[in-house]
Amino acid sequence: MAKRLMPLLNRVLVEKIVPPAKTHAGILLPETSNKLNSGKVLAVGPGLRDKTGNHIPVAVKEGDTVLLPEYGGTTVKLGEKEYHLYRDEDIMGTLHD
Amino acid sequence: MAKRLMPLLNRVLVEKIVPPAKTHAGILLPETSNKLNSGKVLAVGPGLRDKTGNHIPVAVKEGDTVLLPEYGGTTVKLGEKEYHLYRDEDIMGTLHD
Amino acid sequence: MAKRLMPLLNRVLVEKIVPPAKTHAGILLPETSNKLNSGKVLAVGPGLRDKTGNHIPVAVKEGDTVLLPEYGGTTVKLGEKEYHLYRDEDIMGTLHD
Amino acid sequence: MAKRLMPLLNRVLVEKIVPPAKTHAGILLPETSNKLNSGKVLAVGPGLRDKTGNHIPVAVKEGDTVLLPEYGGTTVKLGEKEYHLYRDEDIMGTLHD
Amino acid sequence: MAKRLMPLLNRVLVEKIVPPAKTHAGILLPETSNKLNSGKVLAVGPGLRDKTGNHIPVAVKEGDTVLLPEYGGTTVKLGEKEYHLYRDEDIMGTLHD
Amino acid sequence: MAKRLMPLLNRVLVEKIVPPAKTHAGILLPETSNKLNSGKVLAVGPGLRDKTGNHIPVAVKEGDTVLLPEYGGTTVKLGEKEYHLYRDEDIMGTLHD
Amino acid sequence: MAKRLMPLLNRVLVEKIVPPAKTHAGILLPETSNKLNSGKVLAVGPGLRDKTGNHIPVAVKEGDTVLLPEYGGTTVKLGEKEYHLYRDEDIMGTLHD
Repeated sequence: MAKRLMPLLNRVLVEKIVPPAKTHAGILLPETSNKLNSGKVLAVGPGLRDKTGNHIPVAVKEGDTVLLPEYGGTTVKLGEKEYHLYRDEDIMGTLHD
Repeated sequence: MAKRLMPLLNRVLVEKIVPPAKTHAGILLPETSNKLNSGKVLAVGPGLRDKTGNHIPVAVKEGDTVLLPEYGGTTVKLGEKEYHLYRDEDIMGTLHD
Repeated sequence: MAKRLMPLLNRVLVEKIVPPAKTHAGILLPETSNKLNSGKVLAVGPGLRDKTGNHIPVAVKEGDTVLLPEYGGTTVKLGEKEYHLYRDEDIMGTLHD
Repeated sequence: MAKRLMPLLNRVLVEKIVPPAKTHAGILLPETSNKLNSGKVLAVGPGLRDKTGNHIPVAVKEGDTVLLPEYGGTTVKLGEKEYHLYRDEDIMGTLHD
Repeated sequence: MAKRLMPLLNRVLVEKIVPPAKTHAGILLPETSNKLNSGKVLAVGPGLRDKTGNHIPVAVKEGDTVLLPEYGGTTVKLGEKEYHLYRDEDIMGTLHD
Repeated sequence: MAKRLMPLLNRVLVEKIVPPAKTHAGILLPETSNKLNSGKVLAVGPGLRDKTGNHIPVAVKEGDTVLLPEYGGTTVKLGEKEYHLYRDEDIMGTLHD
Repeated sequence: MAKRLMPLLNRVLVEKIVPPAKTHAGILLPETSNKLNSGKVLAVGPGLRDKTGNHIPVAVKEGDTVLLPEYGGTTVKLGEKEYHLYRDEDIMGTLHD
């Protein structure tokens, strides 16, 4: 029943990265230990069009780990999982190890 | 008495997909089992015009299954059925199996 | 005493189509049986001007049957009859049999 | 003491047409018999400038009878008479017999 | 101590014309006899710049008698006298005898 | 410890001119005797960029005496002294003797 | 666990400069002695795109010491340290010794 979603315009489909609430050994981590609001980019739209009709490339690409804004975005439930749609201008940056 | 509606500008005529409230066997499904707000595109306008007078192509096409925003759109009753008009920039993505 | 009104810019002069409240046989129709807010286009303006001074063609033309928005427009009384002025971007679509 | 006013930009100087409150025979007309808010164009400005510095022609011209919006415009008293200034985009149409 | 003020951008320096409150013979004029809010242009800025960097000429020039809006503008006191600064788009027209 | 501040974009660094509250002879001047809100331009940014990427020149230059708006601007303390940053479009004019 | 953040568009990653609350000799400094809200630029985005798709260079560069606005910006916690993201148009100037 799960469908694949292709975002339109400059929208970006993101799966949020949920930090583990327990360590592998089962010790409960305090809630504030990792508040970085990050996600994995699953799909990006074709981009907005500029004044002459060309697509403006979306600022992130599939596979990027991104820093998300604290508010905003739209929650979408596809099958059993929850995803989020953001406009690319609302995504704050890409995260690298 | 049912008329055919041709949307203007970048408007998109959508028929919402209503998930079945019962299974074929007659078991009532809980209301929250499928909250995906989707629809079928029946007709699209010619698109907005850019600064030089050319039509900007509408981001979806007839026959697309689309993810609709939770709010917005305009309800239109043609004959006995209810349809919805959206601006193409408000449609969030296309859905594929 | 009735004057002819030529709309300016992208304005559209519309005469609303009032659905019959009774059938020919005199049976009162329930108020909700036909709520389609439609009208006949009587005249259109020359269109807005784009950045280089050219007129952008108005999206509808004289004689079109149009779907009107629920709110908006300006009522004008010319002689004994009531008409409505809309900007063409507020008209939602054209209706065809 | 009456001065002549030359409007600036896309402003239009209008003298409102007041419908007679009595017939020639002296019969009082009901207030609602003619509510058309119209006026005579006395002078128009040179027009706004577009992005390349050229004047965009004003949508009405001296001598036009125009349909005025219900609200807006600025009242100007020149000598003993009262006039009104409108931006040309606020004037709804021209009236013709 | 009075300094000379050169307006920036499309600003216009105006000295308001105060109608005499008495006639030459000393008869007090009723306050409403002349409410025209007019002024003399003392200096104009170089104009705003358009998208290509050129100055857009200011709509009025030094020496013009102008019709001022009822509200707006900024009061400036230079030496003992009070002046007013307006953006040229807020000035309604020029007055001529 | 005092640092030098180079404004960005079209910002202008201004040191306000405080009129003397006493004459040289020590006579207290009434507070309202000189309310002209003026300042000296200490540094200007490179200017905003236009649509084609070129810098739009800032409307004032270092050394100018400027008329400041009554409200707005940002106070900056560098070392022991207080300065003010304005966008050049908020500066009303230049003052000359 | 600390990740590296690459800002998107015209965002600027800043580490705030916290003035010492004590002198080296251990004397407590009064809180108001240095209120300059400054920071070090750690990374800048590629810049916004102009109408023709080219990147507009960001107004500051890595390593700059910048004057930050009193309000605004977004706090980001990477590992144990706190950083701030600003749009380059919100950064007021660069600071130099």
